[in-house]
Amino acid sequence: MTSLLGGRAGRAYERAQQVGYRSLPLHVVSVTLTMVGAGILVSSIVEVIDGGSETITLALCGLLWIGVGIAGFQGTRMPDRIQILDIFVTVIAAWLGLTAAGALPYILTGTFDTIDDAIFESVSGFTTTGATVLRPIEGTSKGVLFWRSMSQWIGGMGVIVLVVAVLPTIGGGGMDLLVAEAPGPTGERLTPRVQETAKRLWIVYISFTVAVAIAYMIFGMDLYDALSHSFTTVSTGGFSPYNASLGHFGSAAIEWVAIIAMFLAGGSFVLWYKVLRGTPKPLLHSAEFKAYLGLVAIASLIVYVTSGQSELAMHEGIRNSIFAVLTVVSTTGYGTANFGDWDVPAQGLLLLLMPLGGMAGSTAGGVKMVRLLAVASYAHRETLRQLHPRLVRPIRIGTASVSQDVTNRIMGFLILALAIFGTTAMLLLITGTDLVTGLSAAASALGNVGPGLGDISPENDFRNIPRPGRMIALSAMLLGRLEIYPVLLALSAIPILPRRLRR
Amino acid sequence: MTSLLGGRAGRAYERAQQVGYRSLPLHVVSVTLTMVGAGILVSSIVEVIDGGSETITLALCGLLWIGVGIAGFQGTRMPDRIQILDIFVTVIAAWLGLTAAGALPYILTGTFDTIDDAIFESVSGFTTTGATVLRPIEGTSKGVLFWRSMSQWIGGMGVIVLVVAVLPTIGGGGMDLLVAEAPGPTGERLTPRVQETAKRLWIVYISFTVAVAIAYMIFGMDLYDALSHSFTTVSTGGFSPYNASLGHFGSAAIEWVAIIAMFLAGGSFVLWYKVLRGTPKPLLHSAEFKAYLGLVAIASLIVYVTSGQSELAMHEGIRNSIFAVLTVVSTTGYGTANFGDWDVPAQGLLLLLMPLGGMAGSTAGGVKMVRLLAVASYAHRETLRQLHPRLVRPIRIGTASVSQDVTNRIMGFLILALAIFGTTAMLLLITGTDLVTGLSAAASALGNVGPGLGDISPENDFRNIPRPGRMIALSAMLLGRLEIYPVLLALSAIPILPRRLRR
Repeated sequence: MTSLLGGRAGRAYERAQQVGYRSLPLHVVSVTLTMVGAGILVSSIVEVIDGGSETITLALCGLLWIGVGIAGFQGTRMPDRIQILDIFVTVIAAWLGLTAAGALPYILTGTFDTIDDAIFESVSGFTTTGATVLRPIEGTSKGVLFWRSMSQWIGGMGVIVLVVAVLPTIGGGGMDLLVAEAPGPTGERLTPRVQETAKRLWIVYISFTVAVAIAYMIFGMDLYDALSHSFTTVSTGGFSPYNASLGHFGSAAIEWVAIIAMFLAGGSFVLWYKVLRGTPKPLLHSAEFKAYLGLVAIASLIVYVTSGQSELAMHEGIRNSIFAVLTVVSTTGYGTANFGDWDVPAQGLLLLLMPLGGMAGSTAGGVKMVRLLAVASYAHRETLRQLHPRLVRPIRIGTASVSQDVTNRIMGFLILALAIFGTTAMLLLITGTDLVTGLSAAASALGNVGPGLGDISPENDFRNIPRPGRMIALSAMLLGRLEIYPVLLALSAIPILPRRLRR
Repeated sequence: MTSLLGGRAGRAYERAQQVGYRSLPLHVVSVTLTMVGAGILVSSIVEVIDGGSETITLALCGLLWIGVGIAGFQGTRMPDRIQILDIFVTVIAAWLGLTAAGALPYILTGTFDTIDDAIFESVSGFTTTGATVLRPIEGTSKGVLFWRSMSQWIGGMGVIVLVVAVLPTIGGGGMDLLVAEAPGPTGERLTPRVQETAKRLWIVYISFTVAVAIAYMIFGMDLYDALSHSFTTVSTGGFSPYNASLGHFGSAAIEWVAIIAMFLAGGSFVLWYKVLRGTPKPLLHSAEFKAYLGLVAIASLIVYVTSGQSELAMHEGIRNSIFAVLTVVSTTGYGTANFGDWDVPAQGLLLLLMPLGGMAGSTAGGVKMVRLLAVASYAHRETLRQLHPRLVRPIRIGTASVSQDVTNRIMGFLILALAIFGTTAMLLLITGTDLVTGLSAAASALGNVGPGLGDISPENDFRNIPRPGRMIALSAMLLGRLEIYPVLLALSAIPILPRRLRR
């Protein structure tokens, strides 16, 4: 994170590193709390401008976290040596800190009746899932709603920072895929090169957010609405300050802006950065991008044909279909097109799309295109091997070969995702959902989409899931957002677990 | 197959091999047709005894296939060299021949209104799925119903013969797992050792069938009912000559016999053979057996607790729960316990169990326990590798290591099964099923279970699936029964497919 502080702050940071308690988790959590505090403070300014009654609560809450964060940051420092396990524990600690701190404004302002609802909304926000238990949304303070949107923006950004700046130090892996040109890991510390990458991605992320906000304003939103929605579009989060979501504006142009922005947000930020720098070739040659584009196009066509929106004008039906497919594939989850009312095949396809996700290096959740391509290549090779048992053939993504290590990791991820999906669905059913609601809630939560089918279709919300079920969905959101492994490994640091599970 | 013919017949076979058209598929299909013809002829005898009106039709149909089969057998011979692709083409040709020939009695006797229904029932029979479009069942000729049960018995046996006697010649694979002590493949021809194994499995299969029939008779069935049901229990098929399935007899004792027999049929015939020979150790040390037993026990408990059968006596509820779990896990699919009326969590668990299947080397369909154990070991290793990137650790099933080749094949199978499940479900939804019916029909057909949820719950049948959807389910049954690869590879022999897909 040091690279983000720039020159003078960087030197101050160096000095601070000379003293303090050595703890990577506490150090990183402190940064996280400061970030959250700053966000809540900004929201209190929104509340002031709106003339709402929660200004002081939000301001105090923001200052509290900033204070705690700065104190923690100064009282701790990076250890000299970082073990791999420390990184996983740190990631989990940061996320638990993030979601707990982010829930405090909801609790202090009395936005929710219970603490677990506040935590649900916070986790759903930071994981950019966008499932909500807040209703009626319009009755809520604008400052709180702004914070709610901003939590998704921080979550989307935070994950990129975590993935790019922290995870590559664990010894290769998803990074091989994510940033094809990045150097392999050189050790267990952050390298300058990776920090540089993270910095550039921040710039892309912020520019993208501003651009989307401007586009929304051009087509009629005010600044508040434009920012609230650009936060949740760019992060593929899907929260909206309105019950009717983007449909509130009744504007086809705004929906088209969202369609384009969701498509971009579900794509690789690394590739977009290169396009902006004038080198569109990597994009055009990306097998993952072709797969992403192809999936969205074909799925939109099938949804349009099978959704039975014949009472609508053709252009409306097509827009709704593309919107629904992109809101699911990019895992944004705006509840604009209520696909819960569509014909069954379209719903079924959207259900099958929920776990897939966008491209690697995007803010989207889910399995992601690049893994699907590797998995398809794997299955193809094994089929050929039945005929040619001695066939030697690497797994390919487009024309690039994937190493055995990365392949193994992808397959392991797929297996774990399936097992967690089944367990989540089963637990949700036991809490009392119907089959379609339970299965789609599991897929939607694990893929960080937001809405599902049945009782949680876009016009409904997660209040229709029984209270214990929401806690299960919340766990699935965290598992999905952190791509499973870090959570499992952080569990292995808990000493009370039987040794067999830990080793 | 020659080993099954014994001494003198074997020598006659050797002589026949001197002349005739060299074609492995035609040669094997001829054997298959003879088998089908013999089965239909036996059914005509049942029809005579029952005094039904279809005796002559069945007898002529049986004689027709016996004649065609013998003529084909004598007119063709094994080629000198067998390519791997020949084996896959042969397997598919045998199954297409089997199902087409097996449908003829239904067509000639007018049991179904349309040819596609007759083919559906035939495929559902031979694949031991047990999904039916026949209703009311009791109105049908007893000879035809006997043939219907027998088709499952042949399918269950036929698959074992194909798997054990034919597939090991393709260059290793599932056999490594299936018969741990069997020698590796020695070439592209049948080896004496593998034939010997096949012979022993036949003996176990036939003895098992007789034992189950006797047990059914002890508890009150007549010979016809006992044979009809033992055919479909031992093969994990699930057809019954009664609408109410085994519930027709209203006997707890008969249901317990079925429970035990289904459990045995879902277990490894190789291990049972060893137990019968006085060496129970391999069974007791089998990690797969422990997993199978554990899964059935835990799932039964969860189903009992969550199914909401509180109006029943406890022993009835427990029996129903074990029955339902075993009928699904062993992929038998008797419609005795109507789990379609149970509470949602129990239905959900049964849905999740549908694709799993029993043990390798059983007559059950599905993914099978041994693959699940390998897959779990894989995920465990990859999780550990996140912490210890240089960790070298083989995939294990219990204490035995699994080779990289076998692991790859299992993972490829899993991916293909998932993709085929999604495609099948989507196509079924397009034909007009609801979500739960479509998803469960795809899982049930691919796992060769039989019933599903929604419109195809045990008290319903596949006539509730629109006609085009039944053809899709039928394809999934064949793909599931042949464990996918042979079907895909046989397709690669079709010259019109684009080269890219074939290579």
